[in-house]
Amino acid sequence: MELRVFLDVQWSPEMLRHLESLLLKEVTILPDSSSADCDVLVSGRPDADLIARSSRLTHLLLPWAGLPRSTRLLMMDHPHISVHNIHHNADSAAELALGLMIAAARLIIPADRELRKGDWSWRYRQEGRLLICGSAVLILGYGHIGSRVGRAARALGASVTGIRRSAVSETVEDGVRILPAASLHRLLPYTDVLVLTLPLTDDTVGIIGEQELGLLHEKSVLVNIGRGGLVDEDALYRSLSSGSIGAAGIDVWYRYPESEDERTCTPPSRHDLASLDNIVMTPHMGGGFGTEALEMERARQIAGSINALASCGSMPFRVDLSAGY
Amino acid sequence: MELRVFLDVQWSPEMLRHLESLLLKEVTILPDSSSADCDVLVSGRPDADLIARSSRLTHLLLPWAGLPRSTRLLMMDHPHISVHNIHHNADSAAELALGLMIAAARLIIPADRELRKGDWSWRYRQEGRLLICGSAVLILGYGHIGSRVGRAARALGASVTGIRRSAVSETVEDGVRILPAASLHRLLPYTDVLVLTLPLTDDTVGIIGEQELGLLHEKSVLVNIGRGGLVDEDALYRSLSSGSIGAAGIDVWYRYPESEDERTCTPPSRHDLASLDNIVMTPHMGGGFGTEALEMERARQIAGSINALASCGSMPFRVDLSAGY
Repeated sequence: MELRVFLDVQWSPEMLRHLESLLLKEVTILPDSSSADCDVLVSGRPDADLIARSSRLTHLLLPWAGLPRSTRLLMMDHPHISVHNIHHNADSAAELALGLMIAAARLIIPADRELRKGDWSWRYRQEGRLLICGSAVLILGYGHIGSRVGRAARALGASVTGIRRSAVSETVEDGVRILPAASLHRLLPYTDVLVLTLPLTDDTVGIIGEQELGLLHEKSVLVNIGRGGLVDEDALYRSLSSGSIGAAGIDVWYRYPESEDERTCTPPSRHDLASLDNIVMTPHMGGGFGTEALEMERARQIAGSINALASCGSMPFRVDLSAGY
Repeated sequence: MELRVFLDVQWSPEMLRHLESLLLKEVTILPDSSSADCDVLVSGRPDADLIARSSRLTHLLLPWAGLPRSTRLLMMDHPHISVHNIHHNADSAAELALGLMIAAARLIIPADRELRKGDWSWRYRQEGRLLICGSAVLILGYGHIGSRVGRAARALGASVTGIRRSAVSETVEDGVRILPAASLHRLLPYTDVLVLTLPLTDDTVGIIGEQELGLLHEKSVLVNIGRGGLVDEDALYRSLSSGSIGAAGIDVWYRYPESEDERTCTPPSRHDLASLDNIVMTPHMGGGFGTEALEMERARQIAGSINALASCGSMPFRVDLSAGY
């Protein structure tokens, strides 16, 4: 089927040429939004006017995985347009999750900081540290990213359990036990490493609060690469500073810079997490934004989804607006 | 067979009791070195007098993996005593290697340091960073630790090649290509991540020098958890500071504190590696010294080796003094 596509993205000419080279000949890329009469709109935060103007639009394709709140609200008013996402950065996010897990468990941040000053003390402070080998890893949100984290953790000798909202009873996938969401509180006391790879929705906001962190033991490691709001901000600070959990590796935050100027002066939390040795703090870089391999994979997956629609009449990875992902 | 064992170690009473609980009843632990007439001596750096005094000694069991130079030289004078080691910390070292690999590839150290000051800039500096997924990982010294690193790297989507001194031709083990040492120079230009898990011997000192680092590309990542002397110190500094390689994660060094007092004031290199953003520096903590799980595993493996001798007449993991490991 012939498809007209408008790309509401800020890509380099190389990326655009790369994408065009991957598209089937039935697909036409429209040159600008003035002729926004497209079948497919590639956009993460589409303009309401643009959506209203595009009378033949049937598919909105997000050029990433997460559904922004504003996009969700807008698209709920246009139920005839289906919304889809891509998972081009699941590998990148899973790798960062594993890096944060080990860096937090082994206190690599203070060990590096002090060795740079000639101080080897952290070599002799490894009592109570956690090995991933032999530990119980619980992945909350066992999807594209979570399953990759699980595979690597299993390769390191961990036993891995996944929690998935859609699971109704216990199943096993690739050696990983998958359980429904209701199992969370029962599992936490036996969890050594808790990894959050959930989207932020009305159901998941604050899913890890005072009570849940309190169920973890004092050597446990928390990794959050989902969204900051999954973990209660006050409870996170209290559990790390009191040592009621062992360490955390956090890539997603409570405050973000809202302009380019703010990029150098926006503390990511209202608490003084920066003073703690048992946290690894990365600036939301799980997605690996800008790495060449990732941008090529983004173009490949966008082309794959558009080509699937052109050739088979359906686009993969539809987002459920009511669930929020 | 009845065995008399002397433990030349400084362990807590709990560790000693734990070890005793694991030993077969044929095994007697001698109370002190004055009656050092033992069959098995557990010691990493045995005293020359003690070795000379112990007329029935047949086995020296190192309570770790690496053969110290002084022990090697001493034991070469006592060829009737076989020397054995344990690999209790291979999991711990492999985990640190993987953590260093990802932390170096993603520049977690400067990203964390700046985010603690409210600066998110490293989020926008990921161009040219390497993903492990899809990369070519070369493990130099594919043994107890290397095979574990390889398994985890494969789980992350890397293709893994191992180099092993004893390999005479290409073989495949668990999906990993194993090649002889002579293949190194041919492989380096196609290597994205080079992991060193070799012992330091006359054959391996400086095995990665100016020439070898020069064969790696500008995004490549070097991980060294073997011994500092495997990598030429000057060449390491030059390649990192010039950007001819992408990043490095280094756990083993050129200078070590020689006393407790020196632990807080011993720069690990004569070069200013501490000023570089593209290095992760950890104070020789791959072994995970002191973690409870690891000390339990150490006791378990020592007991296992002694019990094997008592019950089957032979002890596993004999060290080749001429090779040095």
